Amino acid sequence: MKEMSLRARQKQAVLQLAPELVSGCDGLIVTHPPDVRYLSGFTGSAGVLVLSRAKRATLYTDGRYASQAKAEAIGTKVVILPKGVLAAACEGAASAGITRCGFDAANTTVAALAAMKKALPAKIRRSFFSPSGPIVAGLREVKDAGEIETMRRAALLGCALYDRMLGFIAPGMTESEVAAELEHAARLAGAEAMSFETIVASGERSSLPHGRASAARLPRRGFVTLDFGVVVGGYCSDMTRTLRLGKATQEEFDVYHAVLEAQEAAVAAIAPGVTVGDVDEAARSILRREKLDTYFSHSTGHGVGLEIHEGPRVATEQKETLKRGMVITVEPGVYIPGRFGVRIEDMVLVTATGGEILTPSVKAWTQL
Amino acid sequence: MKEMSLRARQKQAVLQLAPELVSGCDGLIVTHPPDVRYLSGFTGSAGVLVLSRAKRATLYTDGRYASQAKAEAIGTKVVILPKGVLAAACEGAASAGITRCGFDAANTTVAALAAMKKALPAKIRRSFFSPSGPIVAGLREVKDAGEIETMRRAALLGCALYDRMLGFIAPGMTESEVAAELEHAARLAGAEAMSFETIVASGERSSLPHGRASAARLPRRGFVTLDFGVVVGGYCSDMTRTLRLGKATQEEFDVYHAVLEAQEAAVAAIAPGVTVGDVDEAARSILRREKLDTYFSHSTGHGVGLEIHEGPRVATEQKETLKRGMVITVEPGVYIPGRFGVRIEDMVLVTATGGEILTPSVKAWTQL
Repeated sequence: MKEMSLRARQKQAVLQLAPELVSGCDGLIVTHPPDVRYLSGFTGSAGVLVLSRAKRATLYTDGRYASQAKAEAIGTKVVILPKGVLAAACEGAASAGITRCGFDAANTTVAALAAMKKALPAKIRRSFFSPSGPIVAGLREVKDAGEIETMRRAALLGCALYDRMLGFIAPGMTESEVAAELEHAARLAGAEAMSFETIVASGERSSLPHGRASAARLPRRGFVTLDFGVVVGGYCSDMTRTLRLGKATQEEFDVYHAVLEAQEAAVAAIAPGVTVGDVDEAARSILRREKLDTYFSHSTGHGVGLEIHEGPRVATEQKETLKRGMVITVEPGVYIPGRFGVRIEDMVLVTATGGEILTPSVKAWTQL
Repeated sequence: MKEMSLRARQKQAVLQLAPELVSGCDGLIVTHPPDVRYLSGFTGSAGVLVLSRAKRATLYTDGRYASQAKAEAIGTKVVILPKGVLAAACEGAASAGITRCGFDAANTTVAALAAMKKALPAKIRRSFFSPSGPIVAGLREVKDAGEIETMRRAALLGCALYDRMLGFIAPGMTESEVAAELEHAARLAGAEAMSFETIVASGERSSLPHGRASAARLPRRGFVTLDFGVVVGGYCSDMTRTLRLGKATQEEFDVYHAVLEAQEAAVAAIAPGVTVGDVDEAARSILRREKLDTYFSHSTGHGVGLEIHEGPRVATEQKETLKRGMVITVEPGVYIPGRFGVRIEDMVLVTATGGEILTPSVKAWTQL
């Protein structure tokens, strides 16, 4: 994994710009904030980047971000506008020699595209913008050395927080109190934010795959699913563990171990060249064998990086192949409505030969 | 303010559906999660709601949300799908007697619209979907009694957290430590989440309008801008105060009071029928008189509710008029690059006769 400078990332994107290539475009307008950050270093919420083969990359933003844009977007030309940032960027693209300007249809609203067209001279309005496919999202799927280093730190901080949490979690606490302690410790340890709303789902609520921490109290006997992540250096971590409070039934014990086996099978399937569908199937087939697959109601995982959900989607029959440097989650779960649920999740780096778990916290049955 | 049931909200939206009305549509597909929540009660991240004059509202979601959707979306028909939720919703819309189905162009990506069209039979594909304007966003701007009650609680919790913070903030703490304490207390007091990434910008960093809490230490002498909010019952609060640590210069003192005067002038301008542009101008004109308007690099405020940023935009020359039941922020600021900044923000409810501040924490010069 080579570490790429911002200029090198811009160059990688520009390499995909030529009317004869898949993108069909000789320029690119980038509006999705994580994409803008990836290519320019700018972390503000309102910046538009224009790339072309002919001219230097240009970042358009507004007065709120004047100092910040200049400090962060090293090597990129910065244009500060009182308002009308998107329109100015479109005008800039049209006057920079671009004939067909790509945009990412998955991150551009219908209203934004209409505004982008409106900013152009009437004679080019209809043909100037063209969906180019997810050029930047594609680049972002494969992390460089610097990104992996940052993601290791984020993932290990997540593990440290989980280990710490094992020391204080107890029946009678509310789910929100658990989240509060976790998030407080995260901040003090240097997390910039949580990656997403912390999930603490206990007892019957563990059967909700997305049970955000609530006022419910942890039971004396039941599962507690913790799914959380921290942002470090802009990059997200993501992990899930399911703890046991009190004695379990044989069925609960068996379901836990089926999920664990499924999770480990999917991790073991990871290697460059393997399809994400095969990784999903590695987990799903174990749960099928145990007649639990109908309770596994989501996909096995997703890419993670500057955003908590990135490509590739690790889901049934998806054909995308893993590449060295990708970081994906592996998170099968079983949710029995109204009763209980179990999910176990790691972040896994695709290495030259297989998969390396970035979140090494204990996954063995943990009963408190 | 009448409290509206979910059915009543759906009815309000449906009233705007007829080919001869502004929307030009006799059905509506709703995909933006806060809009889905507003109309159906469903709080999951992946639900699509279809409304029409002829049939009962139908919510489409996937297996992860099976229990949750049925528990939350009272009075709405719920369809659970293994996958392909958006496509199924489009097919459902087409077979429900809708001839032209509206969508919100501001919250629908170009890629989503393409997928929506692809789900339809070829013969209606080109004409079925039509941008209907922000029907649900428009309804959401005016809060009903239940929403106002919830927003009062969120706003007052924000104030309580601010007051508590006055007791522990001190030079030498990092901005992140301040945020950690604030967020920890928020969780323990019942906040479901923070409304957005907490801003703690101290010393020179107070000149960054969006300075998220960093590892920087609070100075012995300087401003600290705190901008934060909590989510209670799904609704966001939002407030900003700028504190003084140590002795100030006359200039700093004067800038603070100019911002305070501008903020109070804008609050005083609020009443039903007033344009949001006039509210903006009330603040801006004070700063212009003080020759500080060039340092006021953003708009005066925004609506707030289920989302932290909603309509109306309280900005220069905007013509939208305030209505009773709207909740907007009023947050002028002055940012002198590389030196210091001041921002003061309240949430204000538009009443029958004026504006009522929902965030009554002290705004007078506070020096610690």
